[in-house]
Amino acid sequence: MSANRLIYLPLGGAGEIGMNAYVYGYGPAGKERLILVDLGVAFPDMDTSPGVDLILPDVSWLADKLDRLEAIFITHAHEDHIGALAPLWPRLQKKVYARRFTATIGKLKFDEAGLPLDQIVTVGARPDTVEVGPFKVQFVPVSHSIPESSALVIDTPAGRIFHSADFKIDHDPVVGEAWDDARFAEIVKERPVKAMTCDSTNVFSTHEGRSESTLGPALTDLIRSCTGMVVATTFGSNVARLKTLAEAARAANRTVCVLGRSMKRMLSASEEAAVLSAFPKTVSPEEALEVPRRNLMLLATGSQGERRAASAQLSRGKYLGIEMKEGDTFLFSSKTIPGNERDVLRVWNALSEKGVQVIDDQGGKYHVSGHANRPDLEHVHRLILPDMLIPMHGEHRHLAEHARIATESGIAAAVARNGTMLDLSGDVPEVAEYVETGRLYLDGTAIIGALDGVVRDRIRMALNGLVTVTLIVDETNSAMGEPWVETMGLPTKGRGERPLAETMEADLDEVVGRLGRKILADDAKLEEELRKVVRQVAMEEIGKKPEVTVVISRLVAE
Amino acid sequence: MSANRLIYLPLGGAGEIGMNAYVYGYGPAGKERLILVDLGVAFPDMDTSPGVDLILPDVSWLADKLDRLEAIFITHAHEDHIGALAPLWPRLQKKVYARRFTATIGKLKFDEAGLPLDQIVTVGARPDTVEVGPFKVQFVPVSHSIPESSALVIDTPAGRIFHSADFKIDHDPVVGEAWDDARFAEIVKERPVKAMTCDSTNVFSTHEGRSESTLGPALTDLIRSCTGMVVATTFGSNVARLKTLAEAARAANRTVCVLGRSMKRMLSASEEAAVLSAFPKTVSPEEALEVPRRNLMLLATGSQGERRAASAQLSRGKYLGIEMKEGDTFLFSSKTIPGNERDVLRVWNALSEKGVQVIDDQGGKYHVSGHANRPDLEHVHRLILPDMLIPMHGEHRHLAEHARIATESGIAAAVARNGTMLDLSGDVPEVAEYVETGRLYLDGTAIIGALDGVVRDRIRMALNGLVTVTLIVDETNSAMGEPWVETMGLPTKGRGERPLAETMEADLDEVVGRLGRKILADDAKLEEELRKVVRQVAMEEIGKKPEVTVVISRLVAE
Repeated sequence: MSANRLIYLPLGGAGEIGMNAYVYGYGPAGKERLILVDLGVAFPDMDTSPGVDLILPDVSWLADKLDRLEAIFITHAHEDHIGALAPLWPRLQKKVYARRFTATIGKLKFDEAGLPLDQIVTVGARPDTVEVGPFKVQFVPVSHSIPESSALVIDTPAGRIFHSADFKIDHDPVVGEAWDDARFAEIVKERPVKAMTCDSTNVFSTHEGRSESTLGPALTDLIRSCTGMVVATTFGSNVARLKTLAEAARAANRTVCVLGRSMKRMLSASEEAAVLSAFPKTVSPEEALEVPRRNLMLLATGSQGERRAASAQLSRGKYLGIEMKEGDTFLFSSKTIPGNERDVLRVWNALSEKGVQVIDDQGGKYHVSGHANRPDLEHVHRLILPDMLIPMHGEHRHLAEHARIATESGIAAAVARNGTMLDLSGDVPEVAEYVETGRLYLDGTAIIGALDGVVRDRIRMALNGLVTVTLIVDETNSAMGEPWVETMGLPTKGRGERPLAETMEADLDEVVGRLGRKILADDAKLEEELRKVVRQVAMEEIGKKPEVTVVISRLVAE
Repeated sequence: MSANRLIYLPLGGAGEIGMNAYVYGYGPAGKERLILVDLGVAFPDMDTSPGVDLILPDVSWLADKLDRLEAIFITHAHEDHIGALAPLWPRLQKKVYARRFTATIGKLKFDEAGLPLDQIVTVGARPDTVEVGPFKVQFVPVSHSIPESSALVIDTPAGRIFHSADFKIDHDPVVGEAWDDARFAEIVKERPVKAMTCDSTNVFSTHEGRSESTLGPALTDLIRSCTGMVVATTFGSNVARLKTLAEAARAANRTVCVLGRSMKRMLSASEEAAVLSAFPKTVSPEEALEVPRRNLMLLATGSQGERRAASAQLSRGKYLGIEMKEGDTFLFSSKTIPGNERDVLRVWNALSEKGVQVIDDQGGKYHVSGHANRPDLEHVHRLILPDMLIPMHGEHRHLAEHARIATESGIAAAVARNGTMLDLSGDVPEVAEYVETGRLYLDGTAIIGALDGVVRDRIRMALNGLVTVTLIVDETNSAMGEPWVETMGLPTKGRGERPLAETMEADLDEVVGRLGRKILADDAKLEEELRKVVRQVAMEEIGKKPEVTVVISRLVAE
């Protein structure tokens, strides 16, 4: 009897939408050979991660088992699947397998980070197979909103896993392979699927998803009806949408100009990987200035209201010499990701102030999602017929709902959040272990732990303001001069007319005058006393308790 | 010929949803007698106003003209209309007129703030009339989501103004007066309306609004279908919804318990003002613990995910001894205000982790808005037939769209953002003047200006972290000892293994050693030198430039 087992362990992506990182393992318990599927980022916000550049999954568990890690597979080139590859690869140092377009983007990132390009290996679609350790992995083309998105068929001695990655059912996508039930039926016929790990993003959308190709006519009509310049934004990586928009522009007799680095990069990578055919000719921003407004259409980055992206810059003023005016039209061919509403509305209102007509997706008329809705998920469940379904790519609520509908249709399901290792060897998923996981922050060039306290301190300073107290103590443990107070992020005046800092200094001076040598000799106690005074004065004067840093300088006899 | 004019000046609420404050004036230019309608707050967020408690409109313009200000009118008791009254009343010191329920809430706030209760005057609905200076003001009952919401009829020698305040068309509201076209037709018949200032909140909602009373049956069905405890949240001030929910609970054979201060306060004020009849009997949280879960329904505050509210507390653990469990149901009978998505989803996901079934408004099945949708606005335009329409209560995009639909139907309209004074004396609105306006922050007990730099410093500390450098300089302008560095909100280590603060200290020490006496004698130059070193080291070590506070202590001969 074999003691080998088949395990699944999400290190990211199960409990949030973002920073996908899924581990599969096969072998004796605790000695499984491992592969990692995807290594993505999540995006910081001011509420929980101010000042942070990117959020990465904590892969320490994996980094401690490098002798067991066989390889990394990347399903597609969205940042939430590939964004952490360059920052974290130095900790993992294993070969990365991806299809051509994804590999092209990966190599661009490796190049920028000075990492070895030969560690990224381009793989063809199924039947091409990557064999690493006990795993045989195939990339299965699926429709999504970026070229060459792929599900993975992962064969192990314990059974076949179908890892859906991000997908939608699109029988007529503008870019990439059409959805084909037969392709999946064949996979199942070849070998039944033991476990399906499945995208849960749109489980709450109860209507069938729509094809990208349904957008073209409505977009063309809209653009034709506009008399001024038209600017459309969408995700820079949504190459299909860029093509849909550019073709609608051409049909409306407009010249297209692409604004924004991420968009241009995606388009050039698409050309390099030969996944984009017949994209309408575009002009440069300088050339665009010569085109009559009624014949011009701009494609701009920044659909989520990102402050530095082209859309936000256009909303504030000129961008590369181009300025929006009354009579122009701005289209959000996108949906707003929860949490980005304020930023998106800031752009919208700023454009409105310029007299620009702003149009959102109009409930789906000008945007379709790249993820499968509930009826589509149910269709795929029936197609793949897995023994078990493990929801992934979702917040807890998505995972729970997805598990519920699977269970209702008779498929064994389990909600496994980041750090929950499931044993898939039997007939039903079983929790094998809880593994410590978490988030890392890329902060400037440093990588810090989310719980290191660095960001907590930033949040505290932002909420409470900061008071710095400095005091010099001489060799005899007497205070020299008076305590000095600097405030930052606090009102300069309190209840009275006297500056807050002066009131604090006066009270501190009085207290220091009363303190015994014993306390003056003891840094910790002295700090505590001074901190107490500052907080007390602040409460009285401004009704809040600031953060307090105390710096005691001790003069030593020289 | 009279040189008198009729003016409108929004100081808040026109350019945002929140902090409503509208001024009307009549008299010779620059000497108009003035009234203020509403004095509300907006709510802070971490992105733009961290640590702030409330955002208030800057009423300096008005405070400088107290000899011309006649009175304050409050249309209803929502925080965005009444919330700034207590904090700002000391600067205005004028009588406040409101209907009974609104006055009850106002007095509670005045009482807490130690302000004179007799300054709040209770007024009956039209035909009751308040005469102040050249103004005759009547409160006209309208349907909204809080009792005794009122539009205002403001009569001046230059014509009649209809100030809609917040309203919806509801022919069968659960609380308050039903909408009645005849009431408004009569107003117009009595005297034509020169200008209508009008709620713009829902101008982008293209379907007709629905009555509060349509929710009851669906809510009752839902609650009946639940087997565990049911918790529902909505705005605490939505007294109609509380009644709808409580009655649905009773119909489903459940006992109701109300959790959360703001909800209880609204219910008791409703009773005091006699605007709430036949509200089902409620039990205390202690009593609720004795009720079988299948017979219990809680009404909880916190529909926007507020961290300290009852809903968020229930999502995290026990609240007043009550705990949600697998099999229970939580209902958001509310919509999420843009910007609150993350907080709301945090509560949802936390409940999902407990195995609680969470249900949102299901696209309107369990929630209706308190504001008029576009067809309802158009209906009211036709009913009031104003010469001019001035959109209010909206972001710029709402105002612009509302003005557009008015113009399309032949009504003169103007978009007037905060600070834009319109002259309404003629046939069309004309911009008379731009007045300086802005936002004040209530921060603890202090009121600070939004542009004072206090909050800017907090944001900078949050984004960049802070380094404090202290250096002692003796009487001869020589550095004593070494520069000392404290970091806050920064990684403790940089590229190397050495602590970041130590690397900074070493570099600072070296630079200080090289500095001439002249620089050491000059605080500004010395600070600049030290700041430069700190930023340089930080860029090298951690790839970001922190905020830097330099404290130079100069020893003087004693």
